[in-house]
Amino acid sequence: VARTESDLDRLMDGIRAREWRALGRGLSLLEDSTPEAAALVGRIFPLTGNAFTIGVTGPPGSGKSTLVRGLARSYRASGRRVGILAVDPSSPYTGGALLGDRVRMQDLATDRDIFIRSMATRGAMGGLAPATRDGVDLLDAAGFDPVLVETVGVGQDEVDVMRTVDAVVVVTVPGLGDEIQAIKAGIMEIADVFVVNKADRAGVERAVRDLHSALEMAEDGSARRPIVKTVASREEGIDELRQHLDACRVVLESRGELERRRFEHLRLRVEDLLERRILLAARAAVDLDAELRAASSRREDPYTLADRIFARVIESTSSKPR
Amino acid sequence: VARTESDLDRLMDGIRAREWRALGRGLSLLEDSTPEAAALVGRIFPLTGNAFTIGVTGPPGSGKSTLVRGLARSYRASGRRVGILAVDPSSPYTGGALLGDRVRMQDLATDRDIFIRSMATRGAMGGLAPATRDGVDLLDAAGFDPVLVETVGVGQDEVDVMRTVDAVVVVTVPGLGDEIQAIKAGIMEIADVFVVNKADRAGVERAVRDLHSALEMAEDGSARRPIVKTVASREEGIDELRQHLDACRVVLESRGELERRRFEHLRLRVEDLLERRILLAARAAVDLDAELRAASSRREDPYTLADRIFARVIESTSSKPR
Repeated sequence: VARTESDLDRLMDGIRAREWRALGRGLSLLEDSTPEAAALVGRIFPLTGNAFTIGVTGPPGSGKSTLVRGLARSYRASGRRVGILAVDPSSPYTGGALLGDRVRMQDLATDRDIFIRSMATRGAMGGLAPATRDGVDLLDAAGFDPVLVETVGVGQDEVDVMRTVDAVVVVTVPGLGDEIQAIKAGIMEIADVFVVNKADRAGVERAVRDLHSALEMAEDGSARRPIVKTVASREEGIDELRQHLDACRVVLESRGELERRRFEHLRLRVEDLLERRILLAARAAVDLDAELRAASSRREDPYTLADRIFARVIESTSSKPR
Repeated sequence: VARTESDLDRLMDGIRAREWRALGRGLSLLEDSTPEAAALVGRIFPLTGNAFTIGVTGPPGSGKSTLVRGLARSYRASGRRVGILAVDPSSPYTGGALLGDRVRMQDLATDRDIFIRSMATRGAMGGLAPATRDGVDLLDAAGFDPVLVETVGVGQDEVDVMRTVDAVVVVTVPGLGDEIQAIKAGIMEIADVFVVNKADRAGVERAVRDLHSALEMAEDGSARRPIVKTVASREEGIDELRQHLDACRVVLESRGELERRRFEHLRLRVEDLLERRILLAARAAVDLDAELRAASSRREDPYTLADRIFARVIESTSSKPR
């Protein structure tokens, strides 16, 4: 289904006008990681860089969705247009992204200046983070600011997604205890603001204290990062969280740190694309299955095989008329 | 620190003799993802394929370490040599791999036919799974069978590690409730045996029931996979778990499924290496930072930039004398 230039023109018009249909179609296109997706990003990219992008992550059950909805309403109340991407690794066990969409959208769907959508990875090669990056760009280009990115889990996938946004909020809840310490490894380091949600539960002070201790142990200035108590279901603490995020934006911008982060994110993004590129080229250049069969009989080790395939890609690509 | 062939010869002699020093030095070398690591894998690889490799994963606090230790003792009691790799993403918040080593080794360190060691990723590009794969190969080549691989967390990293082993055990505990369902996404699908550990706790039957329901929902034959109740701290249920794993090995082998899995694992491994290769080549071929600076001013989108760098790699590599 080749998309013509005029198709793309029309889609871009719809995206710039923030038409829901166009935004949805654009995001679907980006999820599929096709060549058309690359063409769309080519159109979108020059329009990006205006939105402050905020990632919200934390263990399942910490109330991230409710918190993100509250945050969106708070931004909306001050006249901002808010985009939300709920990143949902599709799996037969989670029910996929569509259900999430419906559940999450209910109470926001009537406001045309809050756009919310789940994003799931579909292509085998794309992964979650690249599609999310492209999706955030689309909402940025459409004029949403801030763009909020919410993840479902707390694994490496989510860490990768959090490495695509300007600022990271890590949400925890009282009573998770020691187990949470291990889960948070990898994400603690990139958090800008911590939230202890469900702060009407017993153990909230202890949770804050535990978090403080963990941050102090890091000895990297982490201890100065704010910890905000919220009860997202009653919209308590949300405005305070927003103030911290606004302050964070100002500080990041003034120190040149925002620019530095975006540069590193761009680096990861281009590296991801190069990785995809070499795998496609390898499949085109050699009969990968036949090569793997030889290696699986232990006649050749994986390193030697990879080197040989790489050389073959270089050879066959460079000899092709370009 | 170029390692000469005779250095490698000596190291390989030590590995084949299962000398602890040599095993430890070999694993350290593999963690560093250097060219020497590739040379070592080249020596090791022809000797692999004998060990049955078993991954054990589950949320923090589910008692995986204790379970793996118990399992190792059970195998040992029937005269097997057991290798254990505890995979531990190093992080300033977790204290790194060394502490884990000491804690975990205490009661096994006196038995020379059980080798246990933590493995942490160090190189920026290597990742956890590639180093683990190489480490498993080393223990396999040294004559350990089975090789047990234990992960600390439950994220994408761990899923990747679990995609390198022959059989996967997923451990859960009573009382984790709904939250665990979301965490398990991605890992449920690749489990061969489920364990409900700490089965002396309240709620064990409910945990088993919940697991059953989740598996039945999958409609892919998952429902027939065994669920074993254990109290690892008292070594209860461990022998039953081992019997299920032995049966699993027989079934996988007889159906050709073991061979299929190992083939897919090899594919992932070679693809990982190709990805590393292209990034190294890109850094050699272009001034990546300068290119990224141009893109970060929105003059070029990431897809176009990646395509251009890829073409440049092809050009510069093919024109080099080989």
